[in-house]
Amino acid sequence: MSQTTSPSLPFVQSEMHPSRWGDPALAGPLPDSARGLVELAFGLADRPALAEPALPESGLADDLVVALRAVVGDEFVLTDDATRRLRTRGKSTPDLLRMRAGDLGDAPDVVVRPAGHDEIAAVLALAVEHRIAVVPFGGGTAVTGGLAARRDGFAGLISLDLVRMKGLLDVDEVSMTAILEPGLRGPEAEALLAERGLTLGHYPQSFEYATIGGFAATRSSGQSSAGYGRFDALVVGLRVATPRGELRLGSAPANAAGPDLRQLILGSEGAFGVITAVTVRVRRLPAVKVYEGWRWSSFDAGAEAMRTLAQAGLLPTVIRLSDENETAINLARPDEIGDGDGSAGTDNGGAGAGCLMITGYEGESAAVAAKQAAVTAVLEGLGGTPLGTEPGEAWAHGRFGAPYLRDAMLDVGVLVETMETATFWSNRDPLYTGVKDALAAELGDGAIVLCHISHVYETGCSLYFTIAAKGADDPLPQWLRAKAAASDAMMAAGATITHHHAVGTDHRPWLTQEIGELGASVLRAVKADLDPTGILNPGVLIPDAADV
Amino acid sequence: MSQTTSPSLPFVQSEMHPSRWGDPALAGPLPDSARGLVELAFGLADRPALAEPALPESGLADDLVVALRAVVGDEFVLTDDATRRLRTRGKSTPDLLRMRAGDLGDAPDVVVRPAGHDEIAAVLALAVEHRIAVVPFGGGTAVTGGLAARRDGFAGLISLDLVRMKGLLDVDEVSMTAILEPGLRGPEAEALLAERGLTLGHYPQSFEYATIGGFAATRSSGQSSAGYGRFDALVVGLRVATPRGELRLGSAPANAAGPDLRQLILGSEGAFGVITAVTVRVRRLPAVKVYEGWRWSSFDAGAEAMRTLAQAGLLPTVIRLSDENETAINLARPDEIGDGDGSAGTDNGGAGAGCLMITGYEGESAAVAAKQAAVTAVLEGLGGTPLGTEPGEAWAHGRFGAPYLRDAMLDVGVLVETMETATFWSNRDPLYTGVKDALAAELGDGAIVLCHISHVYETGCSLYFTIAAKGADDPLPQWLRAKAAASDAMMAAGATITHHHAVGTDHRPWLTQEIGELGASVLRAVKADLDPTGILNPGVLIPDAADV
Repeated sequence: MSQTTSPSLPFVQSEMHPSRWGDPALAGPLPDSARGLVELAFGLADRPALAEPALPESGLADDLVVALRAVVGDEFVLTDDATRRLRTRGKSTPDLLRMRAGDLGDAPDVVVRPAGHDEIAAVLALAVEHRIAVVPFGGGTAVTGGLAARRDGFAGLISLDLVRMKGLLDVDEVSMTAILEPGLRGPEAEALLAERGLTLGHYPQSFEYATIGGFAATRSSGQSSAGYGRFDALVVGLRVATPRGELRLGSAPANAAGPDLRQLILGSEGAFGVITAVTVRVRRLPAVKVYEGWRWSSFDAGAEAMRTLAQAGLLPTVIRLSDENETAINLARPDEIGDGDGSAGTDNGGAGAGCLMITGYEGESAAVAAKQAAVTAVLEGLGGTPLGTEPGEAWAHGRFGAPYLRDAMLDVGVLVETMETATFWSNRDPLYTGVKDALAAELGDGAIVLCHISHVYETGCSLYFTIAAKGADDPLPQWLRAKAAASDAMMAAGATITHHHAVGTDHRPWLTQEIGELGASVLRAVKADLDPTGILNPGVLIPDAADV
Repeated sequence: MSQTTSPSLPFVQSEMHPSRWGDPALAGPLPDSARGLVELAFGLADRPALAEPALPESGLADDLVVALRAVVGDEFVLTDDATRRLRTRGKSTPDLLRMRAGDLGDAPDVVVRPAGHDEIAAVLALAVEHRIAVVPFGGGTAVTGGLAARRDGFAGLISLDLVRMKGLLDVDEVSMTAILEPGLRGPEAEALLAERGLTLGHYPQSFEYATIGGFAATRSSGQSSAGYGRFDALVVGLRVATPRGELRLGSAPANAAGPDLRQLILGSEGAFGVITAVTVRVRRLPAVKVYEGWRWSSFDAGAEAMRTLAQAGLLPTVIRLSDENETAINLARPDEIGDGDGSAGTDNGGAGAGCLMITGYEGESAAVAAKQAAVTAVLEGLGGTPLGTEPGEAWAHGRFGAPYLRDAMLDVGVLVETMETATFWSNRDPLYTGVKDALAAELGDGAIVLCHISHVYETGCSLYFTIAAKGADDPLPQWLRAKAAASDAMMAAGATITHHHAVGTDHRPWLTQEIGELGASVLRAVKADLDPTGILNPGVLIPDAADV
């Protein structure tokens, strides 16, 4: 594959609010349509966020700041409060609650913005020499504490901000692959590929802000992954800067040349190295996109229909299924699922009308029509009721909007958060019931627990839970107790602690249960080999030996 | 998933000939139909194999043999010559040439047949304590020296023969998964699954002898992998016995719980641990199987058609394409491609008629018809000539037979061997040309080099080469020189050293070039963690630090 220098995007400076999700211009109070319902369910309490919580002083010695400037250039080493605040933690509810409470204890000492692989390697060398912790930072959308590295024992903490690495380095239209730099956000990568008529097709809820490097480092899964594949399945090659040098992986579409080392870097969350380029499989931009709704009599009936499609090799590009509670809530809040005309309440089949499934088809027109016809025949045969395109379009329109609503709910004292897991089909209902019961028991009677199946496979599916509860005076320990109970329930059910949110610091206490003491030992061995001084994202992902 | 004890097959004793492929009853001289051609091309020389070459004495101390008997039972620790000979090396041409020449230097001292995971763990503990090398042995079909472990510095060498571990441990028909023991040969696993109406669908050329554990340990790929998936894609869970304890991996169909450690065990070739159970994805037995032939004007034209299908998401269950040379040879040898009526020469389109493609469809009748129609439309649109089912049936009939022919050719002094690689579509022709030229240059003018594309992906394909040449007086160094030249050509082209034959000892000298010095270091780190005393398959797969 020839290396051509393709046009890069201009340095994009748009930033999320430091203690809220997304574009500050789009943040707002709870919509009137929801306010009454929320008040009825939880009561309202005014809980504004601290506008600009105070930061601890940058603790990195001046000579080290000077040394970093020598590597990447003066203007790309920042120690000002505003920049450091913007690189503090991610966007989980605990992250937001800590920011709202004025806790900026995880702020980096310095934000360093390298231009490419070689500068990253040089920063890592400096960090090793002076024992400075390094936290790679892409979109800042982490929801499991992956940006909250341990800093004790280090001379300081660098946020290694990949915002300058936004190149499309190569496109191979014969092999249908592209090489992307890690700092490209979802829409930026899609825009560059679209110039060639190509798409990646990776649309997680964080799409608007999350980056290519983050997708790879966390094994991201998107809303269209049934059609395009999980991000780990889209990756054919990786370039990685580690404290011990460079890894270049991906010599063929598939091979038998020993263990697949790409699969060690995918999901490594910055703890093994910094991903500096990702070669991905790309597809032609779809000519047609169709999204539809289906109504099922129950969550079980809809889930069985999903299983039938998956095992028949007949998956649409998008397929999701809300349980009864989530269906009812969505129908009651048309504004929040983006259906501005308010008619969804009837068009979707009416409140209490079972479970809503969304199916989506993307591709060439004839292929879409054929797939849609085949899927429709199966779903009708299984008792599904077609609801037409309106619920599907409403979902597509609002698909990235939910995190804004969370901020508005937090503003009025309602605790809102999500968590997810996955298991095999035969274990779906025990897992669903176990996690739901654990959340309900811990959060109390007034809490709402919603669930949807967000991703399906031949052998199983993921479950994505959303909770809303009246916030306690200090909602953080309230949520952490509920999260722990739900996580314990996942382990008790033999499921995974995370299907696509990654491990970070929040799931790390459960990882050893999932992969075993020896599995954790292997992770430590790889970490010790690639990062012998332990500077990379310390405390993230890798269980300590003492955790066992 | 509940653990039920399913019926296991009886202890199957059928063995391959120690220095030939397959069932000794099926071995025979070169068919008359081929003899004339072979004589014309290479001349004939009588090169019989030594019937029963002498073995070195078993070198393991008596007290260790006694200790092993205490673990697995007296009758399952064997030191007799016949058993040790049958557990010596695999079935590559170099393996066969060494056996034919009477070199049994790699024979194990003792063959140990454990009944299950716990006995394997106990054998490993004993091996660690007394520093005995352990070579896991499944079907004995290795073709890259994976059974020829280094023995220097060890108290002896155990062949850990998994022949007693043939259970179907569990079937989950909701999730469509099954748990198989590693010693099940391909037909045995299929027979057990067929009792439930299920299939694995994994048919490598070694299918009749190779085992489930070996498929996983070597990342095997089958002739139907376009439809069913490579074996590594079929694996959802693994249980592994290592010198440091047990690994149980595979908590969900997919997850983001850190790096995928299953992908470290897949392809680990016995160097990290012994795979004691494999949870695989299964499918319903296909109601219909259709195999067809297509003629293409050139290898390029056929390969481009394959690429089109792969990138359109329209792959048949089986798809293969022979280059001009392989097509001509197959047409000239109807008996060897299994078409006993001798009419293939005309039905396949006549000699010199471009390139033969085989397409195969398996599944429910309606799905097969729909896929076949869609693929047919694409292939006809691209200029392919349909040849009907006869060439397809002929291929299906003879699909496991080629290794027998190799023995017959070796008997008359003709060197025959295969090797394979893979790359991205844009690099297919440079790789093809590079390897073919390297082989031709090293083997000389009279040699024949054939190639087919055996596996295709959206982003690329594999290339499978077969060579035949007049054997030198000592054909082993003759082949090793040609193999080295071809391997160098693969590396020069940026391809993989192996698409599905694995690394073993034969490809190990090239592995560091492919995965880099740091990648090799990671493999050593994992090895050191799981097998700190290095007893497992020493010298196989993992590059020495000194190799760098």
